[in-house]
Amino acid sequence: MKLINQYICSVKIPSKHIENAVDQIASLPGIGRRTALRLVLQLLNRSQEEIEDFSGAFITMKENVKKCTSCGNVSDIEVCSICSNPNRDESIVCVVEDIRDILAIEATESYKGVYHVLGGIISPMDGVGPSDLNIEQLIERVGTGTISEVIFALSATMEGDTTNFYIYKKLREFNIEVSTLSRGVAVGSELQYADEITLSRSLLNRQPFEV
Amino acid sequence: MKLINQYICSVKIPSKHIENAVDQIASLPGIGRRTALRLVLQLLNRSQEEIEDFSGAFITMKENVKKCTSCGNVSDIEVCSICSNPNRDESIVCVVEDIRDILAIEATESYKGVYHVLGGIISPMDGVGPSDLNIEQLIERVGTGTISEVIFALSATMEGDTTNFYIYKKLREFNIEVSTLSRGVAVGSELQYADEITLSRSLLNRQPFEV
Repeated sequence: MKLINQYICSVKIPSKHIENAVDQIASLPGIGRRTALRLVLQLLNRSQEEIEDFSGAFITMKENVKKCTSCGNVSDIEVCSICSNPNRDESIVCVVEDIRDILAIEATESYKGVYHVLGGIISPMDGVGPSDLNIEQLIERVGTGTISEVIFALSATMEGDTTNFYIYKKLREFNIEVSTLSRGVAVGSELQYADEITLSRSLLNRQPFEV
Repeated sequence: MKLINQYICSVKIPSKHIENAVDQIASLPGIGRRTALRLVLQLLNRSQEEIEDFSGAFITMKENVKKCTSCGNVSDIEVCSICSNPNRDESIVCVVEDIRDILAIEATESYKGVYHVLGGIISPMDGVGPSDLNIEQLIERVGTGTISEVIFALSATMEGDTTNFYIYKKLREFNIEVSTLSRGVAVGSELQYADEITLSRSLLNRQPFEV
């Protein structure tokens, strides 16, 4: 079955224009050539106008989307809707990897501070170093003296921890609180399925029982 | 977890251009808004030129891809590379649903006839009737008298069987052979995992043992 699949991918599509469109779709992360061909054939069945809308969306996006000058989040305007919202507490800054983390935190409706988007995390394996990230801007932001707390909300991976530690060292000179999201057993999950590291961390960081 | 995922999808992305691009990607079959957002953010990191190549591929495809006047397969030229190949046997026509089936059969390197692409199968549930498919062209093709055998290679589903039967009724008036792909236990698969219908069909259609 796998062999046949490979064959299908190796058989030449009898149109170089379709071949090219498949290559473009397959260049997206996590999409193979088989899926790409399925998507391209679906696109081929659409009207000229629909295809123009489809293609135009990406060009318009690339031309118009800016980075918020304050937090680095994607935005249509100079300062994003969160940074320019007068109801948000500008003295608390939550450090995240990208916009998807902001969406996840915003979905909880329990955070009223602002964000700082790094645009990635330190990962030597992927060739991402501290200079590739928005870290300097964060230090500058803290340097203005208006910030009282920085919350690390990066992935609970080795790369996330490395990035946390790198930024923490840079922030030590300032008189601000630095915190990180609590790690522990997920709400609603059964204890027997929690991994050892999470479980041991949540034992170490046990909290006073509240009624 | 599922609830949070739904929340994330409902939180508004702070850029209507990104929102629009996500809508377009999510309009492709089998791609949800979360995946679409991931793909769009990856696109956003590309250069202007790469985005133009990406978008241009679909417009160029839509403008240039034709249908082969003989078999209905997609092609860059009037008659596709299979129909115009003098080494193929034009008297045997294999009826398939779309180009992906052609790629699958071509990958076997064991078919030397030509194809006829229906562009779908009869499926009342999806609102696809016989008139939406390339069936009339097949009848016309057979009517020219140059074809000696028609092979049905449609999906082994109820829709596929319906389509086979519909075309078979139309082809009965011509003096040609009509065959269909053999159904049975897949090569390399274990008997205990074959489903009942496949197994009973392959018992009914048992073949002389050849050494």
